[in-house]
Amino acid sequence: MKKVVLIRHGESLWNKENRFTGWTDVDLSEKGVEEAHEAGRLLKAEGFCFDKAYTSYLKRAIKTLNAVLEEMDQLWIPVEKTWRLNEKHYGNLQGLNKAETAEKFGEAQVKLWRRSYDVAPGPLAADDSRSPLQEAKYAKVEKSLLPLTESLKDTVDRIVPYWSQTIVPSMQPGEEVLIAAHGNSLRGIIKHIKGISDADIVGLNLPTAVPYLFVFDDAMNLQEDRFLGDPEKIKALMEAVANQGKTKK
Amino acid sequence: MKKVVLIRHGESLWNKENRFTGWTDVDLSEKGVEEAHEAGRLLKAEGFCFDKAYTSYLKRAIKTLNAVLEEMDQLWIPVEKTWRLNEKHYGNLQGLNKAETAEKFGEAQVKLWRRSYDVAPGPLAADDSRSPLQEAKYAKVEKSLLPLTESLKDTVDRIVPYWSQTIVPSMQPGEEVLIAAHGNSLRGIIKHIKGISDADIVGLNLPTAVPYLFVFDDAMNLQEDRFLGDPEKIKALMEAVANQGKTKK
Repeated sequence: MKKVVLIRHGESLWNKENRFTGWTDVDLSEKGVEEAHEAGRLLKAEGFCFDKAYTSYLKRAIKTLNAVLEEMDQLWIPVEKTWRLNEKHYGNLQGLNKAETAEKFGEAQVKLWRRSYDVAPGPLAADDSRSPLQEAKYAKVEKSLLPLTESLKDTVDRIVPYWSQTIVPSMQPGEEVLIAAHGNSLRGIIKHIKGISDADIVGLNLPTAVPYLFVFDDAMNLQEDRFLGDPEKIKALMEAVANQGKTKK
Repeated sequence: MKKVVLIRHGESLWNKENRFTGWTDVDLSEKGVEEAHEAGRLLKAEGFCFDKAYTSYLKRAIKTLNAVLEEMDQLWIPVEKTWRLNEKHYGNLQGLNKAETAEKFGEAQVKLWRRSYDVAPGPLAADDSRSPLQEAKYAKVEKSLLPLTESLKDTVDRIVPYWSQTIVPSMQPGEEVLIAAHGNSLRGIIKHIKGISDADIVGLNLPTAVPYLFVFDDAMNLQEDRFLGDPEKIKALMEAVANQGKTKK
């Protein structure tokens, strides 16, 4: 048996402000930090003992991972960070408030940008200070791979090779792996594992900082998947995420 | 040019209680956390931009590193953890108060254990719950390499191969590397880099959480080494460490 736990980062400062974040390196809110610690206590209570962890280049995911590992007393395990686990790049929407954007462009257009599978927002200019081409942290990534905007399809297309070629081959029988990342990069992994259609994946709303367990046999055939924690609380969290794109009255 | 910054972890709960710690996985004190953040702010102000970081399997070093990287906004850099950077193993002294041990065995014997180059305290039993052979985190390390006690010489002998075979070969010209570890594992690296004698290395008292910069040419010949920060404060910190083994009246 092999186990993989996915966890979306805790609430960020921009989740709270309801702004499009994407690759903007926004910190966790106080509530987000507390959510991450709570997830760590839950995983410890459930007896997990991770062999390795993966996370993105963005601090809201890295700090979520560190808080989880601290609670589990497993800060010493190897951690691999990759830009491929970053959130979907939101192009020139990055920084805009979701409700204001909905008022300006209409809820339908925002829903298209947020929830269609293959429509990307307008791209950032390559020389925009927000572009990954201008950021030191991406200096060692091949330039042609770095996005200036992404559809969910683009995000899936960059995360699946990392799952298949890096994470899966590294897992030995009996091992447990933790992946701390983002709503859309985790959707990519879940879509691939569960064979979810392009149309259906956009309806999957991952709650923040709720561990999502996948159990595989040794040949990586999926046996079981379920969220860990209180079902009622998880349902409320998923509905809150789904409602973020609506205008606020 | 290549740069290496060594940093000893901030004050731990057992530094504060003046107990022999060794491989006991003791947390940072509140003061230790604050020291680490201060070191991060200093390194940021000095313009460092690390390409990679190394730390031990012990949380007081890992959390020091995380606090430094958080302040520098460089949490995304690759971090490699290794048991070889762990503190000197203090054998069956681990957990004992330094001043009480001095009263019981005499200051001379404690100084010998703490400050001689090649005298090790008595070993832990292999089946002692404190033994690394019993700890999950060392399960993947070759058993014959794991110590049950160490002299400073033993600590130096396990850290130098890691420096020479892993850290040094990974450094490209222009790169900067950060190593967050412990008083004695860092002594091992410093002894090797500066060619300090067995007799003299025991007199080097590293202050907690003060960044120690080494500048090399591209062929790794040492050009310069100095502590970063306020010289008066560093001197006081070094004297405090040197006095820990004395009996308290």
